[in-house]
Amino acid sequence: MTTAPEVTAAEIAKAVVGGKLSALDAIDAALTRIKQHDTILNSFTDVTAERARAKARAIDADIAAGKKVGPLAGVPFAVKNLFDVAGLPTRAGSKINRDRAPATRDSTLIERMEAAGAVLVGALNMGEYAYDFTGENVHDGPSRNPHDTTRMSGGSSGGSGSAVGGALVPIALGSDTNGSIRVPSSFCGIFGLKPTYGRLSRARSFPFVASLDHLGPFARSVADLALAYDVMQGPDADDAACTTRGVEPVTPLLAESISGLRVAIAGGYFQKNVFPEAVEAVGRVARALGATQVVDIPEAARARAAAYVITTTEGASLHLDRLRKRPNDFDPAVRDRLIAGAMVPAALVDRAQKFRRWYRAQLVEIFKSVDVLLAPATPCTAPKLGQVTFKLDGVELPVRANIGIHTQPISFIGLPVVAVPVPLEPMPIGVQIIAAPWREDIALRVAHALERMGVVSAPSPRGF
Amino acid sequence: MTTAPEVTAAEIAKAVVGGKLSALDAIDAALTRIKQHDTILNSFTDVTAERARAKARAIDADIAAGKKVGPLAGVPFAVKNLFDVAGLPTRAGSKINRDRAPATRDSTLIERMEAAGAVLVGALNMGEYAYDFTGENVHDGPSRNPHDTTRMSGGSSGGSGSAVGGALVPIALGSDTNGSIRVPSSFCGIFGLKPTYGRLSRARSFPFVASLDHLGPFARSVADLALAYDVMQGPDADDAACTTRGVEPVTPLLAESISGLRVAIAGGYFQKNVFPEAVEAVGRVARALGATQVVDIPEAARARAAAYVITTTEGASLHLDRLRKRPNDFDPAVRDRLIAGAMVPAALVDRAQKFRRWYRAQLVEIFKSVDVLLAPATPCTAPKLGQVTFKLDGVELPVRANIGIHTQPISFIGLPVVAVPVPLEPMPIGVQIIAAPWREDIALRVAHALERMGVVSAPSPRGF
Repeated sequence: MTTAPEVTAAEIAKAVVGGKLSALDAIDAALTRIKQHDTILNSFTDVTAERARAKARAIDADIAAGKKVGPLAGVPFAVKNLFDVAGLPTRAGSKINRDRAPATRDSTLIERMEAAGAVLVGALNMGEYAYDFTGENVHDGPSRNPHDTTRMSGGSSGGSGSAVGGALVPIALGSDTNGSIRVPSSFCGIFGLKPTYGRLSRARSFPFVASLDHLGPFARSVADLALAYDVMQGPDADDAACTTRGVEPVTPLLAESISGLRVAIAGGYFQKNVFPEAVEAVGRVARALGATQVVDIPEAARARAAAYVITTTEGASLHLDRLRKRPNDFDPAVRDRLIAGAMVPAALVDRAQKFRRWYRAQLVEIFKSVDVLLAPATPCTAPKLGQVTFKLDGVELPVRANIGIHTQPISFIGLPVVAVPVPLEPMPIGVQIIAAPWREDIALRVAHALERMGVVSAPSPRGF
Repeated sequence: MTTAPEVTAAEIAKAVVGGKLSALDAIDAALTRIKQHDTILNSFTDVTAERARAKARAIDADIAAGKKVGPLAGVPFAVKNLFDVAGLPTRAGSKINRDRAPATRDSTLIERMEAAGAVLVGALNMGEYAYDFTGENVHDGPSRNPHDTTRMSGGSSGGSGSAVGGALVPIALGSDTNGSIRVPSSFCGIFGLKPTYGRLSRARSFPFVASLDHLGPFARSVADLALAYDVMQGPDADDAACTTRGVEPVTPLLAESISGLRVAIAGGYFQKNVFPEAVEAVGRVARALGATQVVDIPEAARARAAAYVITTTEGASLHLDRLRKRPNDFDPAVRDRLIAGAMVPAALVDRAQKFRRWYRAQLVEIFKSVDVLLAPATPCTAPKLGQVTFKLDGVELPVRANIGIHTQPISFIGLPVVAVPVPLEPMPIGVQIIAAPWREDIALRVAHALERMGVVSAPSPRGF
């Protein structure tokens, strides 16, 4: 078997385990493709070729010795550069962090992926300190959209979206604080999972907002997304938020029928602030699922505002010393947002947190009569790189701040979401499949059903 | 039996259950004493005589009918006026709250006290919105120290300290956010229990700082304190912080030997900022317990600073609307502190909360090798009413802000404390008996042992 660019992780692992493809060949194919195309896509900041080849050889040796290898044997993957990778300073998209000592141990999620046979091939470009929805980075240049390299990849996990959308690797990991997995999934036309808050360990990753940070996978198929998710699940004493849930594998459930699941369309706020392509995408998914019920999520705009307040103030707290000592080494746009955040009165944050408890209770109530909510992942397809404003419902607004308008009210209370790509022309766009806390299984099953129906799929990269 | 002023709750209940005293006579005796002396002490803001007599008559009827009555049958008690009392607006020491609708249901703790046979006789004076260490109140006048009515009762549960110290009632309830039970206990020469955070329900009481607020009892003996505590224990779905612990009665354990318990003196910070009387009081208690080990609590000053930051910002959040609409109806000193709190940046609070987790871990570590820590409850005996400054370690400092200098670092992480009165001349002063989380039993047993040894006791009121 050769490795066609869009081969899935499941296909690679099957071929490797079956002796039809060596892990080393699988990894070399990925490294070659990265070398060929990443000068344009700019999705990688570090390629760990030596480490990857060593790991691949070890897998091949294990197979030759008849040892059991994991379900991701020989599958290349890459991680947003806020994950600790042993031997690299964890830059988190910044210039400042490059002065840190190299990490001495991989992130928990890298360890778990590699324990399942996957092979890390590098670290990925991202918006500075994850405070970004565009994928632009003043230090490293923008990661580019694989379907039109003049357009944004989306952020802040822009390199993750670009690398998987561009089929450089079948799986990437990213982080999502306010939308940073779902936005690049949408713009790059791939699947992304933002799990329930507390589901996947964040140990040894560079944080942004402790109560909002989630890590999760990107892939070109739901089966790959579930495979990666399953091997990364499980409690971790090194992340205080990730101690309550055991491993609840989803892969065996993917093919189950979704008839009987109650699917509703998020109304009100989630039907406003949209371009026609978002309406079309949600409509296609809803029709395929036979969903007609529209459910209003109360105070979603306030939830987004509260998410903003908590983000900017906790972010400011995290970066206070750096803001004082090295203000000129920040992306000026990020710096100014953080400085503004450093001056927000705590009394407002206290109210935002109190509102958050109320809002979570409203959603828990809604999920008693609904299994899945549908909402746009982004208000539009990928804007042009450098584009500063767009018109939402006739009002000229800044692009950067408003790309996450539909993602923020969901991550604010930690709900699990699968972003599924609707392959519109000329550019794809994502839809959020939102489930109740800890019900990733439901969101993934619905995504898988949509994929079987041909409603959602990762389009072939065509921008390079 | 007649009811001498200083009769304990246990003695009253025993006499009532044994038919030697009617509940009505017990209550009338308290009402008479309140009428006689409270014009001077000013500890009550509401006397619920009618309700109390009706309740007392019902208890007497139950006894006459041979029904079982509770362990506090016929015991008069009163509550700080931030507890909801059905039929009264919950003023919380303020002018503004008097415009609220009367409460429709008693606080959980009042219900539990009355379910055990105790009889509510009124609501007690307090510092405005509990933001106080003096017991002074610009709307209601100061509650006065029962041992010298020109001196402070301590705050913010000043009326509770004054009423029990003045033997108007054997038991009162109060609240402690930064020291508001322990300070009036110290100044008024009585016992006070600030339980572990989350132990006693705060349902239907007026809050101050959600993550620091504790409710608890005052009494003239450890047995009474434990009796009240035991009947109030137990989870309550109406207070989210109070759901994890069942009832763990302490009364049966009080007389147990304390030999083997490891008692240490809190050093460093807790040995500084003290007047000679505090040194003397801690010394007496330590000698009686054979404690010589001095344990330093790291970063206690920072803990106090962090408690301040969290208090002022959460307090500001709570009162923001009132500050905007009715600034002139506040005590000007309270208002100005709250307005200042409304402008504190959230980034600082975030750091205070992060520090708090670190500091809690340090104390948990200390309590692995120690069962009890001793510290002053206040740096001095009760200052004069209106006194503005005092000298701590040679530095002239504001009285109001510094009375809680030794209490704040303890409540900051929710540790249980029994404040025990050392009957010095001319004025008593308290010592904190501090235990590990959920170990009220240990603190109460040590307090009881000290009482048996005659080292601590509530002096007879002698100021009126």
